Amino acid sequence: MAAKPIISITTDFGEDDHFVGAMKGVILSINADATIVDINHRVNSYDIFDGAYSLSQSYHLFPPGTIHLVVVDPGVGSERRPIIVQSKDYRFVAPDNGVLSMVYEREERVEVRHATAEHFFRKPVSNTFHGRDIFSPLAAWLSRGMEAEKFGNVINDYARFTSVRPKHENDALVKGVAIKVDKFGNVITNIAPADVPQIFGQDPPPFYIRINGHEITEIHESFAAGESSELFAVVGSSGFIEICTNRGSAAKALNVNRGVEVEVAVGSKPVESAADISSES
Amino acid sequence: MAAKPIISITTDFGEDDHFVGAMKGVILSINADATIVDINHRVNSYDIFDGAYSLSQSYHLFPPGTIHLVVVDPGVGSERRPIIVQSKDYRFVAPDNGVLSMVYEREERVEVRHATAEHFFRKPVSNTFHGRDIFSPLAAWLSRGMEAEKFGNVINDYARFTSVRPKHENDALVKGVAIKVDKFGNVITNIAPADVPQIFGQDPPPFYIRINGHEITEIHESFAAGESSELFAVVGSSGFIEICTNRGSAAKALNVNRGVEVEVAVGSKPVESAADISSES
Amino acid sequence: MAAKPIISITTDFGEDDHFVGAMKGVILSINADATIVDINHRVNSYDIFDGAYSLSQSYHLFPPGTIHLVVVDPGVGSERRPIIVQSKDYRFVAPDNGVLSMVYEREERVEVRHATAEHFFRKPVSNTFHGRDIFSPLAAWLSRGMEAEKFGNVINDYARFTSVRPKHENDALVKGVAIKVDKFGNVITNIAPADVPQIFGQDPPPFYIRINGHEITEIHESFAAGESSELFAVVGSSGFIEICTNRGSAAKALNVNRGVEVEVAVGSKPVESAADISSES
Repeated sequence: MAAKPIISITTDFGEDDHFVGAMKGVILSINADATIVDINHRVNSYDIFDGAYSLSQSYHLFPPGTIHLVVVDPGVGSERRPIIVQSKDYRFVAPDNGVLSMVYEREERVEVRHATAEHFFRKPVSNTFHGRDIFSPLAAWLSRGMEAEKFGNVINDYARFTSVRPKHENDALVKGVAIKVDKFGNVITNIAPADVPQIFGQDPPPFYIRINGHEITEIHESFAAGESSELFAVVGSSGFIEICTNRGSAAKALNVNRGVEVEVAVGSKPVESAADISSES
Repeated sequence: MAAKPIISITTDFGEDDHFVGAMKGVILSINADATIVDINHRVNSYDIFDGAYSLSQSYHLFPPGTIHLVVVDPGVGSERRPIIVQSKDYRFVAPDNGVLSMVYEREERVEVRHATAEHFFRKPVSNTFHGRDIFSPLAAWLSRGMEAEKFGNVINDYARFTSVRPKHENDALVKGVAIKVDKFGNVITNIAPADVPQIFGQDPPPFYIRINGHEITEIHESFAAGESSELFAVVGSSGFIEICTNRGSAAKALNVNRGVEVEVAVGSKPVESAADISSES
Repeated sequence: MAAKPIISITTDFGEDDHFVGAMKGVILSINADATIVDINHRVNSYDIFDGAYSLSQSYHLFPPGTIHLVVVDPGVGSERRPIIVQSKDYRFVAPDNGVLSMVYEREERVEVRHATAEHFFRKPVSNTFHGRDIFSPLAAWLSRGMEAEKFGNVINDYARFTSVRPKHENDALVKGVAIKVDKFGNVITNIAPADVPQIFGQDPPPFYIRINGHEITEIHESFAAGESSELFAVVGSSGFIEICTNRGSAAKALNVNRGVEVEVAVGSKPVESAADISSES
């Protein structure tokens, strides 16, 4: 454990209310020495995938020993279990609803425990705010050095989803999806350079990135390398292909949001596009 | 006092500007050892009641010794007094405009002082940003162990409002109000289970919660226990009845905001509702 | 340096994403003892002037030794240089794009270095998130006591803009501009009392502050001194004249945003206004 315990927090609680402040009060009441760091409180409401994505983009950047507290919890008050997860370098406290799936994918080994030791909970436990009453106390007690086995038994049937990977329709066509639109309007896809290595090599063939009827044909090194009215692709900080425009919102220009299909076609324009054109004649 | 002083901050300053960052700079300049925690900066602009509510939902969760700094201050620059309040476990720094009313209600004893010792203020004192120039320095000096009596004399004529309690019209009808719509669209009322104990007992009678022409007839244990298109009630984390829907905004579905009237009618449908129905025939 | 190193962060990253949390993880991985303070993450996207303004309103409020990390970086991935700036009391880490211009204006002496020592960077360096990969590591290493000269050489051709100062058209007419609309809707101009000293003296002459066709003729001591439907001016916490209304948005009432022209005319109403009136007859 780090000399000074660090607890990160990721939630869908937003910033309009006292929710996150209440959690921090509870944590500090149990461990006044904890350093608390916000990762993101604007995860889309109830959106387990979006929470998993935010966490997956940041948890490994923290010092070993950091405890990551994740409360995206549409099932609060139901039978879904609170869990404590130990990976090689980190611990995680979260509802067992799949929000840690990308951690499970990334980490070689995890130990998942169902936290049943109610004497660590804040009493009375409400049915609607386990972030305050269950998850924050668990993280705070962990940060004080309490051993994981004190909280409950290891389980193997924990909830997880598999990240949607792009489909390789054929040698020349990969179909993926937009997994996020960021604050600047960049459209982050689930297609990595390794999925379409041809177009990242030397002397690449022509290619088309299709999204909502638009065709993008340029990959630039950075946002600043593009023209301001131009739509182009970059390899973003997440490691995925992003569609963007220089100092503007690609999502607005394309009129798309998360979930829209994204195709990368390599080589000459495929038949269906030709058909599209002929159908106009 | 806690070994490591904690200062919480609640304001209506939002996050668009440097205001909260400026306050933190001032605090750390006086006491670099202070741990500063945000409770909520999205209190509705100028809304003393909303600030009081956010504070009341969280201040008691912090470790004893915490200093709660509250700046919802529509009267900044006028004659309203800066005050320092001592309760059994906490100290509060705020304008004397009623924003601590729910603290006064909850705490058995408070000592309220008018902070007149201007040598603690940041100079020059602006007329529009006492959060930076008066309240943050007061909180920071308190956190360094300065005794409250050094700041000014005790007063008894401090401003306070009385929380609006629901009205018991008769044995079968309680009239309250929505005091908050939270980030998820849950509508938090000022009606507690103790106001309508009949419907929380075993084998409860039929009841109707009326809000903006809708009638809600179900109380569930948790958000997740409801259907996604169903409007229902829960006892929320604040201890009050909330109107909600599973994974959606009840406030949008009901087309209501804070301030709307909420009635709980116990037993058979009262006459005025019958009239409503007959008027349609 | 302060006993406990403080790093402030100002960005245009917003709070929808994990960006700021990722930066904090990187900083803490290098220096777990750093105290990290947010100044503002809602700088207008890509807006170097707006970032410079937020910083200029707060950096000097922090304890000497504070490291100010500023990432408003539309040129990320291009040839613009990362710089480390030393002033008398503070250090700054930022892209060399002018975002520190108001620091240069305010500080008597600064030493600016081009940070070329790539072994301090996080690897691999992405082309789109230097906040994570370059600027945060630089600030963290500085906070550990690493000497500035280890990062790169002094440069003198660093980027800077000159703040737009109001124009004195004649003895009786000053033309300025709105530089910011704050969260409350107050319209902050670039005109200071020193630009129009006549109207702040004893027994001031009549004057007109013109903005988008409206004429404002009152200066009050504070927001609270005005009527709620009245538009008036105050000297704001920034030291500039602000147009405001008591408990409401002046920007909405005036239908203006940043960039709008603001005139202060001292003495009798100038001719063009008379023309305005006569044109109605």
